Amino acid sequence: MAYVNPSGEFSRDQRYIATRLTADGRDGYPVEPGRYRLVVSRACPWANRAIIVRRLLGLEDVLSMGIAGPTHDERSWTFDLDPGGRDPVLGIERLQEAFLARFPDYDKGITVPAIVDVPTGQVVTNDFAQITVDLSLEWKKYHREGAPELYPEHLREEIDRVNKSVFADVNNGVYRAGFAGTQEAYEKAYHRLFDRLDKLSELLSGRRYLAGDTITEADVRLFTTLVRFDPVYHGHFKCNRQKLIEMPVLWAYARDLFQTPGFGDTIDFVHIKQHYYEVHRDINPTGIVPSGPELGNWLTEHGREALGGRPFGDGTPPPPPKETEVVPTGHGAAA
Amino acid sequence: MAYVNPSGEFSRDQRYIATRLTADGRDGYPVEPGRYRLVVSRACPWANRAIIVRRLLGLEDVLSMGIAGPTHDERSWTFDLDPGGRDPVLGIERLQEAFLARFPDYDKGITVPAIVDVPTGQVVTNDFAQITVDLSLEWKKYHREGAPELYPEHLREEIDRVNKSVFADVNNGVYRAGFAGTQEAYEKAYHRLFDRLDKLSELLSGRRYLAGDTITEADVRLFTTLVRFDPVYHGHFKCNRQKLIEMPVLWAYARDLFQTPGFGDTIDFVHIKQHYYEVHRDINPTGIVPSGPELGNWLTEHGREALGGRPFGDGTPPPPPKETEVVPTGHGAAA
Repeated sequence: MAYVNPSGEFSRDQRYIATRLTADGRDGYPVEPGRYRLVVSRACPWANRAIIVRRLLGLEDVLSMGIAGPTHDERSWTFDLDPGGRDPVLGIERLQEAFLARFPDYDKGITVPAIVDVPTGQVVTNDFAQITVDLSLEWKKYHREGAPELYPEHLREEIDRVNKSVFADVNNGVYRAGFAGTQEAYEKAYHRLFDRLDKLSELLSGRRYLAGDTITEADVRLFTTLVRFDPVYHGHFKCNRQKLIEMPVLWAYARDLFQTPGFGDTIDFVHIKQHYYEVHRDINPTGIVPSGPELGNWLTEHGREALGGRPFGDGTPPPPPKETEVVPTGHGAAA
Repeated sequence: MAYVNPSGEFSRDQRYIATRLTADGRDGYPVEPGRYRLVVSRACPWANRAIIVRRLLGLEDVLSMGIAGPTHDERSWTFDLDPGGRDPVLGIERLQEAFLARFPDYDKGITVPAIVDVPTGQVVTNDFAQITVDLSLEWKKYHREGAPELYPEHLREEIDRVNKSVFADVNNGVYRAGFAGTQEAYEKAYHRLFDRLDKLSELLSGRRYLAGDTITEADVRLFTTLVRFDPVYHGHFKCNRQKLIEMPVLWAYARDLFQTPGFGDTIDFVHIKQHYYEVHRDINPTGIVPSGPELGNWLTEHGREALGGRPFGDGTPPPPPKETEVVPTGHGAAA
């Protein structure tokens, strides 16, 4: 449990590579179609954000995507899903190679999402929170026609405010519960998590999305945690006051997004479960992956249309995923 | 994981002390009021059966009860709840002492329930399945007025048949899932468990109790597993197709029993959770006990009266528990 501090609290290493891809290229990496590769794992909630945003904005053809397998060892995510175990574009077996190509002594976590500069094979950034915002703002020139505004100026303050508490209490909160080293640290995280979920339920009982009547960055961030709640966090991380399906507002909200193009079609429940249960041997020593829960319920009616709203604002839903990026049959909610 | 065989399957050591307490005393231990002490832990489902049956039959004044704490070490259950850490009647700190008093080389599990002969301090039996049947049949002379017939002759074949599959697939099935050493062994146990629960749901949708319209030994045995399902087996043992509260028939059936005098008033959810999560470090290395789930829902309406039935047959419900045997405030469903 490498990340537990002396008081028993899980503490996330938040030192990411702060280099940014920008339209003006001021950090040395100008946004360019075809030059970069987004490396993700479908298992990881932080990477899942980038997968969704890239889909919603229609960046598939300008920013390619490499998909690491659901499990990894202490050193790195690996491309074990690819033929020969190598990413076909980067030609590497382990994401770590791209980090070491830029920083030979890199000793922090090898995390996804990461964006790699294809010509040099060097990682540009793994700063997950900045990556999705920059996809919205810096890659604007390459968005598809009808791409939604996920981080619009007039809502930015509101989105940032929601994101801050959702990160602390929910996105990272489930990890704080699951990796707590003491009963006290666990209980603190548990109560913060469910208190926040109660507040979010209240907010979302009156509006369709977190920042109002359109989908924003804030919804993407909450969604990737909610979708993992019952399959993983409820049992594995002991976030068990209720299951998500017992919290009617949040459950309807999560299904509404799941059934929106660009959200549910990025979800691989098999990878998600394999990742957490196989990798975290410190809290699941056997590595056995639970067979439940049944997930067909993600496709049931949610009734949130009654709240009105315009999911994509003045934009349109994204088209179906590219054939090469479709989640394998049996890995989604219809499993 | 001491009980996992080479194929990865959990295998319960079923060699119990087969000595019986009988009305005729043919094994050397005649039923006598005041002579024996039933040792239990409220955490343990096998002991919970004996606690319930003793209550239903009104044997409290003829067979005293010692309550071990919820956790134990590798060697023994201990009387850590009692002043000075000693059972006030037997004067021992560890249940193991009563086993060694009779069998100095005893090397099998020190299990509850166990019945101890107070004058000699020697254990008589820990054969949990026989204990409850004998409380019904051999202690009959000392039953309270209005005690129900939990193992009546005309239903015995039916009760035995149900008990057999409930033991294999449910009572012991949850342990087979939780302690499986391989993914395959786990999945086998998981499917057997939920297939059986589906069959039981079907049966119980048409009748109030397992053997018909009155409570029997079969209901006691299923109840003690169902009551632990959401607090423990769902997460800790990965029995997570659904929670009990998502299986409407079984959930109503379990609440019906819980709200029946003699059942819910024996349940200590705090001990139950502490036991499993603190003792099984091989599957929960941190020993952290989940704060959830919320349990007030055990007291909600179940609607099973609509099926008719006579819970106690020609008998009556037991009176409230003796003051010394009341589950501590905050440990029950009203917590």
